[in-house]
Amino acid sequence: MERAYRLVIACPDQVGIVAAVSDFIAVHQGWITEAHHYTDPGSQWFFMRYVVRASSLPFDLERLCQLFAPIAERFAMQWRVADTGMRKRVVLMVSRQEHCLADLLYRWRSGELDCDISCVLSNHDALRSYVDWHGLRYCHFPVDAADKSAHFAAVDQALAEAQADLVVLARYMQILPASICEQYPGRIINIHHSFLPSFVGAKPYHQASERGVKLIGATCHYVTADLDAGPIIEQDVVRVGHHNTVEDMVRLGKDVEKMVLSRGLRYHLEDRVMVHGNKTIVFA
Amino acid sequence: MERAYRLVIACPDQVGIVAAVSDFIAVHQGWITEAHHYTDPGSQWFFMRYVVRASSLPFDLERLCQLFAPIAERFAMQWRVADTGMRKRVVLMVSRQEHCLADLLYRWRSGELDCDISCVLSNHDALRSYVDWHGLRYCHFPVDAADKSAHFAAVDQALAEAQADLVVLARYMQILPASICEQYPGRIINIHHSFLPSFVGAKPYHQASERGVKLIGATCHYVTADLDAGPIIEQDVVRVGHHNTVEDMVRLGKDVEKMVLSRGLRYHLEDRVMVHGNKTIVFA
Amino acid sequence: MERAYRLVIACPDQVGIVAAVSDFIAVHQGWITEAHHYTDPGSQWFFMRYVVRASSLPFDLERLCQLFAPIAERFAMQWRVADTGMRKRVVLMVSRQEHCLADLLYRWRSGELDCDISCVLSNHDALRSYVDWHGLRYCHFPVDAADKSAHFAAVDQALAEAQADLVVLARYMQILPASICEQYPGRIINIHHSFLPSFVGAKPYHQASERGVKLIGATCHYVTADLDAGPIIEQDVVRVGHHNTVEDMVRLGKDVEKMVLSRGLRYHLEDRVMVHGNKTIVFA
Amino acid sequence: MERAYRLVIACPDQVGIVAAVSDFIAVHQGWITEAHHYTDPGSQWFFMRYVVRASSLPFDLERLCQLFAPIAERFAMQWRVADTGMRKRVVLMVSRQEHCLADLLYRWRSGELDCDISCVLSNHDALRSYVDWHGLRYCHFPVDAADKSAHFAAVDQALAEAQADLVVLARYMQILPASICEQYPGRIINIHHSFLPSFVGAKPYHQASERGVKLIGATCHYVTADLDAGPIIEQDVVRVGHHNTVEDMVRLGKDVEKMVLSRGLRYHLEDRVMVHGNKTIVFA
Repeated sequence: MERAYRLVIACPDQVGIVAAVSDFIAVHQGWITEAHHYTDPGSQWFFMRYVVRASSLPFDLERLCQLFAPIAERFAMQWRVADTGMRKRVVLMVSRQEHCLADLLYRWRSGELDCDISCVLSNHDALRSYVDWHGLRYCHFPVDAADKSAHFAAVDQALAEAQADLVVLARYMQILPASICEQYPGRIINIHHSFLPSFVGAKPYHQASERGVKLIGATCHYVTADLDAGPIIEQDVVRVGHHNTVEDMVRLGKDVEKMVLSRGLRYHLEDRVMVHGNKTIVFA
Repeated sequence: MERAYRLVIACPDQVGIVAAVSDFIAVHQGWITEAHHYTDPGSQWFFMRYVVRASSLPFDLERLCQLFAPIAERFAMQWRVADTGMRKRVVLMVSRQEHCLADLLYRWRSGELDCDISCVLSNHDALRSYVDWHGLRYCHFPVDAADKSAHFAAVDQALAEAQADLVVLARYMQILPASICEQYPGRIINIHHSFLPSFVGAKPYHQASERGVKLIGATCHYVTADLDAGPIIEQDVVRVGHHNTVEDMVRLGKDVEKMVLSRGLRYHLEDRVMVHGNKTIVFA
Repeated sequence: MERAYRLVIACPDQVGIVAAVSDFIAVHQGWITEAHHYTDPGSQWFFMRYVVRASSLPFDLERLCQLFAPIAERFAMQWRVADTGMRKRVVLMVSRQEHCLADLLYRWRSGELDCDISCVLSNHDALRSYVDWHGLRYCHFPVDAADKSAHFAAVDQALAEAQADLVVLARYMQILPASICEQYPGRIINIHHSFLPSFVGAKPYHQASERGVKLIGATCHYVTADLDAGPIIEQDVVRVGHHNTVEDMVRLGKDVEKMVLSRGLRYHLEDRVMVHGNKTIVFA
Repeated sequence: MERAYRLVIACPDQVGIVAAVSDFIAVHQGWITEAHHYTDPGSQWFFMRYVVRASSLPFDLERLCQLFAPIAERFAMQWRVADTGMRKRVVLMVSRQEHCLADLLYRWRSGELDCDISCVLSNHDALRSYVDWHGLRYCHFPVDAADKSAHFAAVDQALAEAQADLVVLARYMQILPASICEQYPGRIINIHHSFLPSFVGAKPYHQASERGVKLIGATCHYVTADLDAGPIIEQDVVRVGHHNTVEDMVRLGKDVEKMVLSRGLRYHLEDRVMVHGNKTIVFA
C-alpha cells in the first residue's frame, strides 16, 4: 500500500467546506484516492475523510498541518491527519477465551491489520504460549476478586508505558474502571457478545436462549464509563433455532464476535470511524 | 399439493415414542413425506411433526384420530392432526399502513399462502378499496382514543363470528386487551418492527436511530397479554448506517417486516410451530 | 423530499476536478446534501455524484447547465443533471408472473418509488385487472411464437410513444431484439432469476436444483444485446437445502427477485448508477 | 459430549423403514437424541440419521451392527454406524496461504472440531513453524512444475500411511490426480474460492471483478475427478461493490472461505452429510 495521509474532519456544516479543502489539496497537486462526506441532518454537523497520496504532495506531514491550519480554523474544524507510514500502537486485553485473540493475531501476522501490537494484557496466564510464538509481550496481571484495584493499577501503568493509541478488549471479561475509560475516549474498543441493546451485561447467550430469539449477534463499540452503552461501530448476527443449545450459541457466537471485532478494529485503524455524540459515522 | 395429514405431537420424552407412532403409520401403509423430531434437553419434552399422504391411509381423518387416541394416551401426548384439505380461517387486522397487508394479499391470491381470509378488520378506512378489489370483506371499527372499549367489543364479536382459527396483526398498531389475547392462545400472530427484545413498545425505529445500531430488524411472535413478550416465531434484520435517517429505517424496515411476517405466518399455517413455555419449536 | 439537482459526472481523473466542481457549487451558495466520489484504479476514470438543494441555488436547471458547461468541457466530462422535480417515465414489461409487478406497483402507489409509470406492456392479458385497479394503462401485445416480429414492433412503438426514460423487464420472459436493446443503452433493466453468471438462460432454478447449490439468487442488470451479460446493478441470495424442491426454489426466489429488482430500480431512479464498460458504479 | 452412535442410512423408500429402525432402537431401550429423515422425491431414495446415546444401549458397537444387519438387509440399506468415541483421522493439505489452516487449527486446538489431525501436507515449507507449534507433523513435498508425479506419489503414500479417513484441501492449490480422487470418494473436501458454478478454475476473484458481481462467495465440496464439479456441501457469500479491488475481494473472500470450509468440515465430521448422485443431503 502506498503511503498516504488521511485527513479527517468534523465541523458545523456551511457552504464552502468541500471547496476550501479540495482546493487546498488541488493547488498542491495532491492526488485524492478516497473521499467521503456526510452531513448529519439533525445536528447539521459535517464529516469528511480524504485520503491523499503522500508522494503527490510537495511537503511532509508537519508542513501539511501548518498549511491546513488556517482553513481548519476558518471552519472551526475538529481535525487530524493520520500518516499511514506511522502504525498505530495497539494493546490487546484478553481473559481466557482465545477466539478473538487468535483471529486478530492471524490478521496481524498476515499483514491484514495494519498496526503494531505493543503487548497483550490478561488476568490469566492461559494464552501466554500462543502470544509468545508471535514474539509479542504477554503481561499477566491476576485479578483478586475481592479487590481489583491492584489489577487495574497494573493495567493503567502498562497502557501508559505502551503509549497505547488504542486498547482492544478482545473478550477481556472485566469491567474497566471509569478512571481508565476516561483516559482513552474513543480509543478503547470492546466486543460485546450480543446484539446490543439486547442482553446487556453478563451471560448474554443464556439470556438469548431464555428469550427464544431466532438470531444472535455481537457488537463492537467504543467503551465509555456506561457499561455496554458506548457508540456502536459494527454489529452482525447469525441465525439460531430451537435446536441450538446455549453451548451451540456460544460456539456460533464466537464466529460472529471475531468477525465483528476485526471489522470494527479495521475501520478504526483506517481512520474510518468518527464519534458523534453516542453514535458513529463509519466511512466503510 | 396432494392432500395430507399433519400429525403434531408434544409429550414428555421417553423410549419408544417414535417407534409407536411410526409403527402405527406403517401398519396402515401410511406414506410419510416429512418427519421432524426434537427433544428439548432442559425440560425433556419431545416434539414431533409427521406429514402423511391422505390417500395412502385406508380411512378418513376422524377414524385416524380414533385409532391414534390410545397411543396418544399411552404417552400423555398433546396432539392434533391437521388436514391440508381444510384451510385455516384467518382474520387480518390492520391500521393505515399497507405494506404487510399488500404482501399477504399478494401471497394469498397467488396461492402461496394456503388459508381462507375471513375478513380484514381495521381501525381506519384507508385500505378498503384494495381489500374490496380482492373480493374480501373489510370491516372498519373506528377507535375512540378516550374509550377504546367499543372498538374492542366490535373486534371481539367479529373474531367470534369469523370463527377465526388465526388472527394476524399486520401492523394493527393497537394493543389488544388481555381478554382477547387470552381467548386465542397461540393463535394471534403479531409483527413487531424491531429485533426484539431490543426496542419494545412504540417508535422502535426512532429508538434504533437514537442508539445508533448498525442493523435493524423485525420480529414475528405470538401475542400474549404481556406486550411484545410472547413466543418468537421468526426474526430478521437489515443493515443500516449513519447515513440512514429514521425515514430510511422505516422504509427498509417495511421490507423486513413483511418478509418476517409472511415466513412466520407460513410456518404457522403449515403447522410447523409448537409453543413450549415462552419459546417456539419451528420445524422449518 | 425537497427538490434537488443531482449532478452526475464521469471523466478521466486528474487533479482539481473536485475542487472545480465544489468551488462552482460554493460560489453560488449551493447546499450539497449528498456527495460521492470514486476513481477506478484500472482505467483511472473518475465518477462523482452531488445532490444540491434546488432552493439554495439562485438560478434554474437550464442556467445551471449553462454555467457548468465550461467546467465540464475543461475536464472532458460526461455529465448530466437530474431534477428531482421531473419524474422519470417508466414502462413496465411483464408476462404472466405477478410477483415483481405487484411489488413495484405497491412501492409506486405508496410513494416509495419516485417515478411515473407510463404503461404496462405484456404478451399476456393475465395482469390487466390488477393494473387497471391502479388506474394505469395496460397494453396486451400477444406473441406469435412462430414470428415474434409483430409483437416487438408493437413494443417498439409503444416505448417510443411513451417517451420512456426507462424500461423495466419485470419477469417479461421474452428476449428483446438487439434493435430495441440498442435504442435504450443503460435504460433497460432486467431481473434475472439466478445469481449471474451462474445459470444463464432458461430455467435457472432447475439448473440450480440439478447442481445442488446451497444458495440461490437473483440479478438486476442493464440489458444489452448479449443475453444475461449486461452490467450488474444488484444481486442477492437466499439459502436453500436438499429438502427444497424446484417449486420451493421458485417461491423463495420470487422474494429475492422482487427485492433485488426494486433495489436496482431505486438506485437507477435516484441516479446512483453509472455504467463503466461492463460494470456499474453504484453510489448506494 | 456424551458418547453416542450415529446411525446413517440410505435406501430406496418404502413403507415401514422408520418403524423398523425406531422399533429396533426402542426394544433395546436406546435413547435417541437427534433424528433426521428425508426422502428425495425424484429418486424416491430415503435418508436417515439417528444419534443414540451409547450408554443407553446394552451392547457395544460391534454387537449393534450385528443386530442391525438383518434390518439393513431387509430394506437394502447403505448404512454405517459412527462411534463418537472414535475420532476421525484427518489429513490437511495446504499451499502457502494460511487463513484456512489457521482457522482449522484454532478450532481443532480449542476442541471445536472433533477429529485427530494426522499431519499437514504441503508443497511449500511456509507454514511449518505454525504447525510445529501445535505439535503436529508437517510434511513438505515440493512440486516440480514440469513433472508433478513425484509430488503426488509422496502425497499418495502419506495419505495411505496416515490411514486418512478424510483429506481436507485447505487452499492446497494443486489439482489432485484422478487416481487419488478415486481412492477417497466422498472423503476429500475442498474449499473453492468462488460461488460455484460461477468462476470455475483459476483466479476466481479476478473473474468476479471482471464480471462486476455484487456478491462473492466460496464453496465447500467433495472432490471428484471432475474439477470443481463435485457435490456441494456448503456455500456462502459476502457483499462487494465497485470500490472493492481484487485485493479487497481476496481479503473478504478469505473470511468466507474459512467459514464455509469449517462448516462443511464440521458437517462431515458429525456424519451429517450424505452424497446422493452429484448432490448432498446435509442434516444440519
